Amino acid sequence: MKLKRLLIGRPMKSHELAEEKLSKLKALAVLSSDALSSVAYGTEQILLVLVTVGAAALWYSLPISIAVLGLLTILILSYRQTIYAYPMGGGAYIVAKDNLGVPFGLVAGGSLLVDYILTVAVSSSAGTDAITSAFPSLHGHRVFISLFMIIVITLLNLRGITESASILMYPVYLFVLAVFLLIIGGAVQYMAGNIHATPPAIGTVVSGMSLFLLLKAFSSGCSALTGVEAVSNAIPNFMAPAEKNAAKTLVIMGGILGAMFIGISLLAYGFGIAPKPNETVVSQIASATFGRGIIYYFIQAVTALILFLAANTAFAAFPLLAFMLASDRFMPNMFMVRGDRLGFSNGIIVLGVLSGLLIIASKGETESLIPLYAVGVFIPFTLSQAGMMKRWIVKKPSGWIVPFLINTVGMLTTLTITLIFLITKFSQVWMIFLFLPAVIFIFKKINQHYHALADELRLDIDHEKPSKKGSVIVIPVGGITQVVRNTISYAQSLSDNIIAVYVGFDDESLHRMEKRWDEWNPGVRLIVLRSHYRSIVKPLTKFIDTVEWKTAETDHVTIMIPYFVTRHWWQNLLHNQTSLFLRAYLFAKENVKIAMVPYYLKK
Amino acid sequence: MKLKRLLIGRPMKSHELAEEKLSKLKALAVLSSDALSSVAYGTEQILLVLVTVGAAALWYSLPISIAVLGLLTILILSYRQTIYAYPMGGGAYIVAKDNLGVPFGLVAGGSLLVDYILTVAVSSSAGTDAITSAFPSLHGHRVFISLFMIIVITLLNLRGITESASILMYPVYLFVLAVFLLIIGGAVQYMAGNIHATPPAIGTVVSGMSLFLLLKAFSSGCSALTGVEAVSNAIPNFMAPAEKNAAKTLVIMGGILGAMFIGISLLAYGFGIAPKPNETVVSQIASATFGRGIIYYFIQAVTALILFLAANTAFAAFPLLAFMLASDRFMPNMFMVRGDRLGFSNGIIVLGVLSGLLIIASKGETESLIPLYAVGVFIPFTLSQAGMMKRWIVKKPSGWIVPFLINTVGMLTTLTITLIFLITKFSQVWMIFLFLPAVIFIFKKINQHYHALADELRLDIDHEKPSKKGSVIVIPVGGITQVVRNTISYAQSLSDNIIAVYVGFDDESLHRMEKRWDEWNPGVRLIVLRSHYRSIVKPLTKFIDTVEWKTAETDHVTIMIPYFVTRHWWQNLLHNQTSLFLRAYLFAKENVKIAMVPYYLKK
Repeated sequence: MKLKRLLIGRPMKSHELAEEKLSKLKALAVLSSDALSSVAYGTEQILLVLVTVGAAALWYSLPISIAVLGLLTILILSYRQTIYAYPMGGGAYIVAKDNLGVPFGLVAGGSLLVDYILTVAVSSSAGTDAITSAFPSLHGHRVFISLFMIIVITLLNLRGITESASILMYPVYLFVLAVFLLIIGGAVQYMAGNIHATPPAIGTVVSGMSLFLLLKAFSSGCSALTGVEAVSNAIPNFMAPAEKNAAKTLVIMGGILGAMFIGISLLAYGFGIAPKPNETVVSQIASATFGRGIIYYFIQAVTALILFLAANTAFAAFPLLAFMLASDRFMPNMFMVRGDRLGFSNGIIVLGVLSGLLIIASKGETESLIPLYAVGVFIPFTLSQAGMMKRWIVKKPSGWIVPFLINTVGMLTTLTITLIFLITKFSQVWMIFLFLPAVIFIFKKINQHYHALADELRLDIDHEKPSKKGSVIVIPVGGITQVVRNTISYAQSLSDNIIAVYVGFDDESLHRMEKRWDEWNPGVRLIVLRSHYRSIVKPLTKFIDTVEWKTAETDHVTIMIPYFVTRHWWQNLLHNQTSLFLRAYLFAKENVKIAMVPYYLKK
Repeated sequence: MKLKRLLIGRPMKSHELAEEKLSKLKALAVLSSDALSSVAYGTEQILLVLVTVGAAALWYSLPISIAVLGLLTILILSYRQTIYAYPMGGGAYIVAKDNLGVPFGLVAGGSLLVDYILTVAVSSSAGTDAITSAFPSLHGHRVFISLFMIIVITLLNLRGITESASILMYPVYLFVLAVFLLIIGGAVQYMAGNIHATPPAIGTVVSGMSLFLLLKAFSSGCSALTGVEAVSNAIPNFMAPAEKNAAKTLVIMGGILGAMFIGISLLAYGFGIAPKPNETVVSQIASATFGRGIIYYFIQAVTALILFLAANTAFAAFPLLAFMLASDRFMPNMFMVRGDRLGFSNGIIVLGVLSGLLIIASKGETESLIPLYAVGVFIPFTLSQAGMMKRWIVKKPSGWIVPFLINTVGMLTTLTITLIFLITKFSQVWMIFLFLPAVIFIFKKINQHYHALADELRLDIDHEKPSKKGSVIVIPVGGITQVVRNTISYAQSLSDNIIAVYVGFDDESLHRMEKRWDEWNPGVRLIVLRSHYRSIVKPLTKFIDTVEWKTAETDHVTIMIPYFVTRHWWQNLLHNQTSLFLRAYLFAKENVKIAMVPYYLKK
């Protein structure tokens, strides 16, 4: 308990929730690390596909990057519209459910949930790769490092979002600073003529280049766009006016992301860089620009850090989405409970545990999951845009044509990209066809259970009053002691119909007990039972069955089990805990109530 | 449960206990393996000490062996007297307690208990050594093999003693057969003049020989006598007439043991054998007699087996001793409970677990524990003889002088050996001075607890009747559902004084609940509480404290917690288990009774 306080902090009152809201600056830090970190590998993903047909094809990266930038613009514009349309948080789940119906909402919500788990696993192992590249001796501890990072991020999030935002602001802004430093430095070097590279001429015709490859390169570049939906999911976390602040944050993030991405793509082209197996494109640009000095290591370190923090975006988004799904009764109630620090602790913990398990299961090698993760983002993108289209058509507010067109273009583009992913990388993304139906099946089952439960527990307050019944109390006794006296006294305060039962192993003990009971005469009749198997449970359950069979119609049957509570836990080792055994055996009886009646020892 | 049946067998009725009794032949198998197995190393222990001053000193083994044989005779005679004096089982604990008082009894009982644990650990790792000597590739799995053997023996004993006796008879008698085969074969070879050895002449004076060394060699040889007390502890396990059968079994065992021991010692001398680090003395005699053929391997295999089975003696004796100590309230009650198969299951399991832990802690290397184990036997030997002496003096039956003298000689001899052990092997046995006081301290503490408890629970049946009190029932409710209706109906069958309590997080929910409750009008008043911390436990406990403070003098306070039971366990994941949390929080309240009132879901 003290450890919990130390790690997580004091509990907070509900009305402190308002103070937990995010300013634009903090929101950018919490919600953009996933999106911004993608520039660390976006350009490289494009070049990796192009280089398969030869270095001359690398010039295609420029038009592809511009196409990705165009897509980014469309996404930002259409999500901006979503924010204003759904100021309470317009994730793909809400938008799709509201406009296209529950099944589409569940598809969007399900793929996002799976996706957030993948985000955490992929980002934390990518960050670990960056660390182990710098310190190869740590390579054997990759799983351990990834898990450690996930635990740290989980604890930060359990402390509450603003506190983690304060910590997370620095690396995010340092990363932005580092990338712009790199782009400006690189541009200066290039213009000063210090770079002696011969990039392939733009427009060169390359044999072997196909539309399929171009589309594959484009879709790979789109992995730089994962994470832009985070802002629209998290509007309730913003300070008032939430939607305005969220929209501004989204646009700022889009601007920074676009500038960094196109800057790196241009430099990669201008520097004539081809992807290498053991050095990242960003690292190549940085070492060409600054040499392997302090600035180079600063850039590399901050890049590694931002990859870790990308996981944090999922920690902000997953619990909120789980809350929404739980509110609609597609996920367990527990995701609706706010913890001591007002975060949705259960969502945070579940995300931490599941992504940790994924790390362990994949032994920390999660690279092959990246395409799966990308397609898991573009499915909800598409559904969200389609939902917005439907909304414009149905509502038709004044001037709805332009936003409708924006969403239409967005829908068509993201749909196309989803299809390109499915076609060009089927071998890596087929699992989505297992995951999604499974998750949606579970959602449906949970929903059915809650509805069936609600039906069963519902009460007609006009006609269903508590029914009047009598009562019979059965007390198993092991002798005549203070413990038994205490229980009988308690039972007598509740009912006049009390039966004490004694189980003995031989006739002598039964007679002795009956005689002493008569002498004591506590006002309760005693029934004695003989046991052949040294078990007191069997004759007792048989007796209780008889009582139940005779009286359950008219009476509530209660078994009161007398027991004593020792002052120290170790003293329990000295007693046979018959009372606990009895309770465990009798617990399964539906029509019988069990009451444990404790007697507290003084010594 | 099915696994338990398979491993242990069907439960047995109490009256089947008589059929579980041992015949002499079976008793010898169960109770003598510890004693008989000692001949596998007894002679060797003597030679190991003598050889430190030179091969010429080895002749001393003959007089020493004869002295050990004399001691064995004394022990057998005096234990035979004990059997007739204590037909209900006259272990050292009983004899010392009865005649010398409880503290001496506890010293004897405590050292025997510790000793039985050592027996199991030492024997099973000695048996493992024999196996791994034959199959060196298994050497890395010594701890695993030892633990496996302990588990097998534990399960055999949980099945019941006669069944394990049936299984154990063969190896014990095969071992006896093998040793006599060896002795006779060796004697024939020796007389036929086939052995060309030059043993040191009897009477040779050896420089460096000291009384200290002689005593050390003698005490080492006495390790061959461990285990002879087993019969006198286990008299209640014998068929009627128990004491006669036990006495006969003891004498037979003594005869076999003595013959085997002196035979091996004579052959060792006649064959001129000196101890070798990697071959046992028995193995040397066997290979000199029969060569390394099938008979040699038979002897070795049976020797290994008997060492394992020595552990079984402790499994017969430990639970009985624990039962006696528990009957006298020096050990926990659980050692008095007979299991499904009529054995004292708890004693068997505790012995298995503790010796297993000892194996793990010592990594299977228990050789250094052998002297500790020997001294742990001779302390109760001494106390038992002293107790018998006292008994003769006090009772003075006709012809008491001779038995008194036998016990006196026995007491003096075993006391001397104990002292020799303490002096010559202090570095290996000092732990007994830690163990014994600790065990006795625990005995005393347990005894105090039981007496204090009995005082506290004792009831004056003439004057202490159950006190009459009123009753108040508090029901925490979360809404108006069938679950709540069920609980209220139950409460109304027990008391007229019922309070329902609702905890809400905002005023609106409180008002709504109050309104609906009035509409429902179940005949129970409702109290609403407002919570600031999203915790329903805190306001509730505060309220209950108030109720308790106001009414505990006159009323029994009951908290009835409504809850529902789902049809399938996994459905519990979908609910917040508030009822279980409440129960856990309220459990510590001394003056409040908690009743869980289940509502069983149909779907």
